[in-house]
Amino acid sequence: MERLPGFRDFYPEPLPHAEAWSADARNHIFRAWRETARRYGFREYDGPPLEPLELFTLKSGEEIVGQLFNFVDKGERAVALRPEMTPTLARMIATSERAYKKPIKWFALPQLFRYEKQQKGRLREHFQLNCDIFGEADTAADAELIALLIDSLRALGLTHEDFVIRLSSRNAWQEFFAARCQDETKAYDFYQVVDKIEREKPEVTAQKLTALGIALDDVKHFIAAGEPTAELRTVIDNLAARGLGAFVKIDYNVIRGLAYYTGVVFEAFDKKGEFRAIAGGGRYNNLVKLISAGKVDLPALGFGMGDVVLLELLKSRGVLPKFTSGVDVVALVEDETLRPETLGLVQQLREAGLAVDYSLVPMKGDKQFKRALELAATHTVRLERGADGAVLAKVKNIQTREEKVVSPTDVIAALGR
Amino acid sequence: MERLPGFRDFYPEPLPHAEAWSADARNHIFRAWRETARRYGFREYDGPPLEPLELFTLKSGEEIVGQLFNFVDKGERAVALRPEMTPTLARMIATSERAYKKPIKWFALPQLFRYEKQQKGRLREHFQLNCDIFGEADTAADAELIALLIDSLRALGLTHEDFVIRLSSRNAWQEFFAARCQDETKAYDFYQVVDKIEREKPEVTAQKLTALGIALDDVKHFIAAGEPTAELRTVIDNLAARGLGAFVKIDYNVIRGLAYYTGVVFEAFDKKGEFRAIAGGGRYNNLVKLISAGKVDLPALGFGMGDVVLLELLKSRGVLPKFTSGVDVVALVEDETLRPETLGLVQQLREAGLAVDYSLVPMKGDKQFKRALELAATHTVRLERGADGAVLAKVKNIQTREEKVVSPTDVIAALGR
Repeated sequence: MERLPGFRDFYPEPLPHAEAWSADARNHIFRAWRETARRYGFREYDGPPLEPLELFTLKSGEEIVGQLFNFVDKGERAVALRPEMTPTLARMIATSERAYKKPIKWFALPQLFRYEKQQKGRLREHFQLNCDIFGEADTAADAELIALLIDSLRALGLTHEDFVIRLSSRNAWQEFFAARCQDETKAYDFYQVVDKIEREKPEVTAQKLTALGIALDDVKHFIAAGEPTAELRTVIDNLAARGLGAFVKIDYNVIRGLAYYTGVVFEAFDKKGEFRAIAGGGRYNNLVKLISAGKVDLPALGFGMGDVVLLELLKSRGVLPKFTSGVDVVALVEDETLRPETLGLVQQLREAGLAVDYSLVPMKGDKQFKRALELAATHTVRLERGADGAVLAKVKNIQTREEKVVSPTDVIAALGR
Repeated sequence: MERLPGFRDFYPEPLPHAEAWSADARNHIFRAWRETARRYGFREYDGPPLEPLELFTLKSGEEIVGQLFNFVDKGERAVALRPEMTPTLARMIATSERAYKKPIKWFALPQLFRYEKQQKGRLREHFQLNCDIFGEADTAADAELIALLIDSLRALGLTHEDFVIRLSSRNAWQEFFAARCQDETKAYDFYQVVDKIEREKPEVTAQKLTALGIALDDVKHFIAAGEPTAELRTVIDNLAARGLGAFVKIDYNVIRGLAYYTGVVFEAFDKKGEFRAIAGGGRYNNLVKLISAGKVDLPALGFGMGDVVLLELLKSRGVLPKFTSGVDVVALVEDETLRPETLGLVQQLREAGLAVDYSLVPMKGDKQFKRALELAATHTVRLERGADGAVLAKVKNIQTREEKVVSPTDVIAALGR
């Protein structure tokens, strides 16, 4: 029986076939994400993968329904598998923010779902690192968030030669638009045109802009000038003070498609331009108010980084480690009369924190040793009965083939623990 | 907007209200589960939370549909949110087992879903530790799996005074049944009666047994005698050799409700009998064959342990740690002209692996220090301009209030890193 199209099975390495997804690589990414968030003082939260459909349409409009895994449950509720984490987070913040000191700095690693028309290799689920800050309007928060994004990628072995954060501002574009068009209701249409400017044919873009009374050359010139606003200047200075200046550049091509962004926006891209965006985010100061029906009003900002493009990039840059079994020690049973004592030793080593494997059933000694090599264990240990009948432990370093003979109670010390 | 009934939001501690679920407690449990599996040489896998409905009905019959979150997707597929992990795992094993050395020892931490009629406090999702072994028919594998279950609970601070593994055998019950009833097709009906024996009224049980030609006293005597089979004896001896004998007892009240168990079965219970089962599992040697339509035949066994009953038990036994922010160092900014240098220092400490927080915006010194106390940081660090204009770092141990004055480049050393 097949799994559903667009969903992934994650296997331990070595992978069963070239197209299989690696659970080890996924966990490697998750660990780097969690570890970086920890260093930044961000706290983990989570929410339900299934939410009322209305939570998503409220934020993104009815048109999002076409892209959702939505259905009516047995209690007649319209529900959907979450396509993004921000609405859930905004709900949690709206109901509970009073209990937390500001700024609130939270992260999550949700699995997200979209029902898009199936294309070659296009997935219907992925995992995301979501990091958000609530309750701080100052651009110092934008810089802190972008620094976290940069360090999340650096923690995976990427450098400023591999990726760059393209920094932009809804405010800059808002000013640009307001100086040229008095109809504020058309601002979002304009943002949508800018959002597609790098992918759309110039004549189509020009036509759409003309309808808004704006010239394509005017827009192109604004992008090419790339004059940072005062707001963006403070963000860049802040990052430079951290020594992260090489990771960011102003790029007004970035505007972010979603309706709810309000200030600084940004996207992370690989420098060679081979992949889609690695991550994206920005200010969304009005969303908590919207989700809470006006009850709670908190400035907010955040970013999301998916696991799929990131994994492609890590692979192509050769920075993924070689994943092994994680087993430290293999206990060899060559004298089956000593199996009970070996089980006792295995238990003792595991209680000391070592990852230990052994053959569950009798097996030839050389086959057991071969297995230890395959598992990339650092040591083997085996019990033997000495001439006087006393049990001895032989601890072998697989790399050096050096063997120590010790009392069974001294094995942990002999392993250097 | 409310979340759906039966679903949970997970908040960082301190929790916003008494009923809130703790993301920190959940991660504490997840870490203990992963760490124990690692010590046993088990490898992590994962699969899709959404699967074809047929994957579950094939294993459990059509009657399971009444308990599922199932729906028809936009591609006209009958699908369901997974109620258990074993069918997904059996599918993965059936398609890929040839790539892996036996025995295959895998674990996962899936979120599982059931649409049960809503009862007070009854959840519609939970997380589970799932551990399984494929390709080893010997009871040494059963003992290894049960030892892992025991150590997963011990890793959370529970002892043999808190829980016990009740050990039983489908084979023992199968022999009992075959000696009394020749109609093998009724064996599963009989197991279902035994499965409910502790919860059902004796007269109802007696009546159902009579219909199968079996006397209640006969069954009760068999349970009370608790005579271990040869198979169970080897499992108990194996666990005793590890020093884990105090954690298991024979208890034929346990039989496991599901149809697919074939050999040793077991459940973990709190010793005071206050809670539902903490975990349960056993042999299911025929499932891979069933899921693979006969193509792959591998002996198998596994257990599942949910997070909800476990968390109740950990709370009631007082073995949950106090969860704090995880922040190590708070950088204080008392001289705003030194903010850029402080940002550089924060970056340096974070790159050294320390969790560092600081006030994003100007704040009174005493308020910043108070915040460091609330975050339970171990140290504060602040930069000052000395009389000669050189920048100095003051590193304070919050516990002892001892303060060292060092060069900004020596802060990591002063923090004892």
